[in-house]
Amino acid sequence: MEFDKVEPGPLLANINSPADLKKLDPNQLVEVCDELRDYIIETVSIHGGHFGASLGVVEMTVALHYVYDTPKDLLIWDVGHQAYGHKILTGRRENFYTNRKYGGLSGFPKRSESEYDTFGVGHSSTSISAALGMAVSRDLSDEDKKVVAVIGDGAMTAGLAFEAMNNAGAMNSDLLVILNDNCMSIDPNVGALKEYLTDITTSKTFNKVRDEIYDMLGHFKSAGEKMRKVASRLEKAVTTAITPGGLFQALGFKYYGPVDGHNVDTMRKHLEDLKDIPGPKLLHAVTVKGKGFAPAEREQTKWHAQSSPFDKITGKSLAPEKKGPKIPRYQHIFGDAIVELAEEDERIVGITPAMPSGSSLWPLMNTFPDRAFDVGIAEQHSITFAAGLAAEGKKPFAAIYSSFLQRAYDQVIHDVAIQNLPVVFCIDRAGIAGADGPTHHGLYDISYLRAVPNMIISSPLNEQELRDMMYTASKYEDDAWAIRYPRGEATGMDFRKEFQSMEIGKGECIREGEDVAVLSFGPMGNYVIEALDDLEEEGINAGHLNMRFAKPLDTQLIKQVCQTYRHIITIEDGTKLGGFGSAVAEFLADKPYHIPVTIMGVPDRIVEHGTQRELHDEVGIGPDGIKEQVRKVLKTYSLNA
Amino acid sequence: MEFDKVEPGPLLANINSPADLKKLDPNQLVEVCDELRDYIIETVSIHGGHFGASLGVVEMTVALHYVYDTPKDLLIWDVGHQAYGHKILTGRRENFYTNRKYGGLSGFPKRSESEYDTFGVGHSSTSISAALGMAVSRDLSDEDKKVVAVIGDGAMTAGLAFEAMNNAGAMNSDLLVILNDNCMSIDPNVGALKEYLTDITTSKTFNKVRDEIYDMLGHFKSAGEKMRKVASRLEKAVTTAITPGGLFQALGFKYYGPVDGHNVDTMRKHLEDLKDIPGPKLLHAVTVKGKGFAPAEREQTKWHAQSSPFDKITGKSLAPEKKGPKIPRYQHIFGDAIVELAEEDERIVGITPAMPSGSSLWPLMNTFPDRAFDVGIAEQHSITFAAGLAAEGKKPFAAIYSSFLQRAYDQVIHDVAIQNLPVVFCIDRAGIAGADGPTHHGLYDISYLRAVPNMIISSPLNEQELRDMMYTASKYEDDAWAIRYPRGEATGMDFRKEFQSMEIGKGECIREGEDVAVLSFGPMGNYVIEALDDLEEEGINAGHLNMRFAKPLDTQLIKQVCQTYRHIITIEDGTKLGGFGSAVAEFLADKPYHIPVTIMGVPDRIVEHGTQRELHDEVGIGPDGIKEQVRKVLKTYSLNA
Repeated sequence: MEFDKVEPGPLLANINSPADLKKLDPNQLVEVCDELRDYIIETVSIHGGHFGASLGVVEMTVALHYVYDTPKDLLIWDVGHQAYGHKILTGRRENFYTNRKYGGLSGFPKRSESEYDTFGVGHSSTSISAALGMAVSRDLSDEDKKVVAVIGDGAMTAGLAFEAMNNAGAMNSDLLVILNDNCMSIDPNVGALKEYLTDITTSKTFNKVRDEIYDMLGHFKSAGEKMRKVASRLEKAVTTAITPGGLFQALGFKYYGPVDGHNVDTMRKHLEDLKDIPGPKLLHAVTVKGKGFAPAEREQTKWHAQSSPFDKITGKSLAPEKKGPKIPRYQHIFGDAIVELAEEDERIVGITPAMPSGSSLWPLMNTFPDRAFDVGIAEQHSITFAAGLAAEGKKPFAAIYSSFLQRAYDQVIHDVAIQNLPVVFCIDRAGIAGADGPTHHGLYDISYLRAVPNMIISSPLNEQELRDMMYTASKYEDDAWAIRYPRGEATGMDFRKEFQSMEIGKGECIREGEDVAVLSFGPMGNYVIEALDDLEEEGINAGHLNMRFAKPLDTQLIKQVCQTYRHIITIEDGTKLGGFGSAVAEFLADKPYHIPVTIMGVPDRIVEHGTQRELHDEVGIGPDGIKEQVRKVLKTYSLNA
Repeated sequence: MEFDKVEPGPLLANINSPADLKKLDPNQLVEVCDELRDYIIETVSIHGGHFGASLGVVEMTVALHYVYDTPKDLLIWDVGHQAYGHKILTGRRENFYTNRKYGGLSGFPKRSESEYDTFGVGHSSTSISAALGMAVSRDLSDEDKKVVAVIGDGAMTAGLAFEAMNNAGAMNSDLLVILNDNCMSIDPNVGALKEYLTDITTSKTFNKVRDEIYDMLGHFKSAGEKMRKVASRLEKAVTTAITPGGLFQALGFKYYGPVDGHNVDTMRKHLEDLKDIPGPKLLHAVTVKGKGFAPAEREQTKWHAQSSPFDKITGKSLAPEKKGPKIPRYQHIFGDAIVELAEEDERIVGITPAMPSGSSLWPLMNTFPDRAFDVGIAEQHSITFAAGLAAEGKKPFAAIYSSFLQRAYDQVIHDVAIQNLPVVFCIDRAGIAGADGPTHHGLYDISYLRAVPNMIISSPLNEQELRDMMYTASKYEDDAWAIRYPRGEATGMDFRKEFQSMEIGKGECIREGEDVAVLSFGPMGNYVIEALDDLEEEGINAGHLNMRFAKPLDTQLIKQVCQTYRHIITIEDGTKLGGFGSAVAEFLADKPYHIPVTIMGVPDRIVEHGTQRELHDEVGIGPDGIKEQVRKVLKTYSLNA
């Protein structure tokens, strides 16, 4: 679509690789930055995308590719939201309008997409570990290349980043970490580290005080021998104290900064200087998320990403207004329900690792600020912290994305399940996540949680069931309970205001049928309803069971199904290996029913990005895929189809 | 067994709870410590156990229970190796000789064992997170209790501890963290943090310098107004600089120390003082691992734990010498093989998160010190670091315990599998781990890895297969590869020195039979061999397939089995949910064979501690359990049995 393309400015139009950038005079870089920023804003204003982070690193990006010899020198972009400018400068400008679209560019750096993308990212805080691995590989092979990781201040709070700093600081491999400090991850950054960085960056008088102190120390040194010795000690101590970044120095990094990350000229000079300084070092650059786009600078969380078109000056939405009542997202259903539950039960607390907006914990944070905890990007801690609360009698609801819970898997096992603590996991973004792609799809949680004892695993068909599952879980004291639901809109149904208890491990029959029964887990059941309605018009009458629980399985209901039908199809929004369908197959494996089970789910390969519906259809678990599978099964029996 | 009991000293004999301890005069505590230390040494010298860590915290343990009002006040012992003294003082002295034995006391704190064990531990670095959860719970309920976490310096390098510090430092909840600094985790601690702590503790002149500096600042203050202002600033800077612990202060903790952790009197006084100081605070206590037992002080890694009896003075082993050649452990087979492979292929590197002894990476570290990396207790980092090395063309072998790999699950998915990087995971302690119990059993890896695309999962029957799997994996470039093997002795077979390539995804028939075929995964096959030999004498002739791969499955071989036999039994040393047996059931679910599959493995519950054989027998996967299962299956068909 021609209208989709954005015209680059005159300098940017001629930059098809970093080599073209390097041909420019240093004093042209400011203009390149302006053009790059405009290009990002204009493209995202039409096509959507993550936004604020990339605007914040425009100057850094231009300076890095100007100074370093990429792709020989290795740039690793943490989280990857930041990498739009990097993509545009490294030969992907023409295709940039396909960003995050099905079949188009990935929203994150991706090794298979470009030789300039040295390490695929998506989850935060991996860059220093990966960069250290690359630096060590270089050292072992006696290669001559630089390694630079760019990490945000929010990402720095994650344990993985700390583990990597601690290791890198002791290994002395040549490595530059740029701390992109914008005081934000997606939501405002929290924690002691953030306060520490704020202390550094707001101390405008640092240099002045430092100079005065050095003057005084000079006087001491001209005194007697003993005084000189003391003064020398004092100098070392003072240098450490009044040079900011003592935290990083304690971890073995040389600290430089803070510097203005939006001055491309000084950034360029700093990077040139740092090329000659060996060992692990950290450059602290202060930036503004959303820099150069006024609405984004004002409201950084809102403008972290945009999915619909907007006016590139005012930020006003240009999306056509939807007719009719707005369908709530599962996130909002969760966010409202936890407040209602917390009002009834003062033991209930909510926890999120840095996703109060994404997971919709804000309603609880606003209503009961003492009982809702944003612990920062710290998934491991979020779960052990929840376990600590549960150990002392609280009823914690941990709201966490499925793919982020992977980070806390040991904490689920070691701190929750082995101790049988009744933590409720509200697993958000379960199943295909959409435009964020493979790193964010929540495909493994059913499998990795099902293996763990003392764990209930449920998934609601709709709004009502999500509310009732949360209610039932809030009253349940015996085990941990995982409730998984996808990103995005629920069904739009009217739901009861009052909560109602559900029977644990019980499914329901939604539709009686013959020959084939479809057993669905979670909201996939809505696709099944749609598919079976269509099939009915073809004269095919399949049964449908909404199983609700992957663990414990409703084995009684399955036995009934085995007595009524000839073939079972299971369907779930997750990997086919080890998940809900696998649980059904395991149960039936040694039973005398001899009923075939066809497991529908996400196949055992990496699924790329696109809309949820595009990807469900691609892997064959959309309504069309279900219809096709039912017909295929019936054909095997030469029945009806 | 009466001879197993150890006589406590006269004071200890009367301490059956902390209340008894509190009745003593402060000046009697030194003697209590001596008696407690003797009691631990004597018991462990007879019965084995983790050792060094508890000796290092004898004085701290006595001081803590003397000063705090446990169990109302909450003590959380990180890792839990340290908690022997705690157990003995809290009513478990009489049973302490059952420590780590089947049916006896757990080697770690355990909530179900005692109200004094506030949080179960085993893996490191959970204590601060859990303690923060408990402190916040106390605050919400307006309770009056103190919360104290005791964490080792090695455990402090793990990301989880950092995440918790960062959160606690900002939350301002009242919480004491005691950093038990013995410069060791199990192997010597590594990383920048360790160097930082060493800097602090070796600066003997701190106080002297500090006093001199304050003197000088006094002179300044008596000078003019401008000088006074500057001096005042300087004082603040200097205070920060010359007070050690700036790292912890940066994270929002008040820092106290370093103090001598072996002086029970000063420890007691410090703790008394700290009770009155609100907010998050850290007491840095310097201790010696193995304190008071000379052999353990000398060789701390060796004496981390002991499983066989030894002389309580000299440390000399009292275990009867085994006849015949010593059977190598799987760990040693790994340790030798990786050196041989590394000699042939310079891309090969080895990585361990703080377990060079346990995983036997020492041979590689000694032979190729540049190519073997102990990254400290930092499981997440260890895998992303490996991914970084692989991204640049190296062939990393990550040696990691199964239950510790749970900590790096997201890194396996996000950094290795999605990018399809050929990292080899040598998964140690896979299956029932033995005396360490539930936290250390490696029961979930088959399930949680099988769900992940781009991943080969294999397990060797014996020494030869482990070597050949490592060799084949070293040559394989397409996917990640996980090789799982258990703790302890291999089979003792003679094995080829030369490596031989294995066909990926291919099993072998070990024994032809009729009616029932047993499909084994990994070393469990040796139990099957034993069981089927026995059954042959009963006239039962079952078949046996050594499958070698859980992914990809040898579906061709399984099809052959389906054509030859009437019933399949699968067996694995891992959970029955989602593992190898589940893979077989999934494959057969929609196939026309109608052959029942009985899945043998670890049931879906927490399995406690004991020897591996005791626990295998308990859950029915030892040779007796296999025989019973075969007979039972045959009885169903009324055949032979």
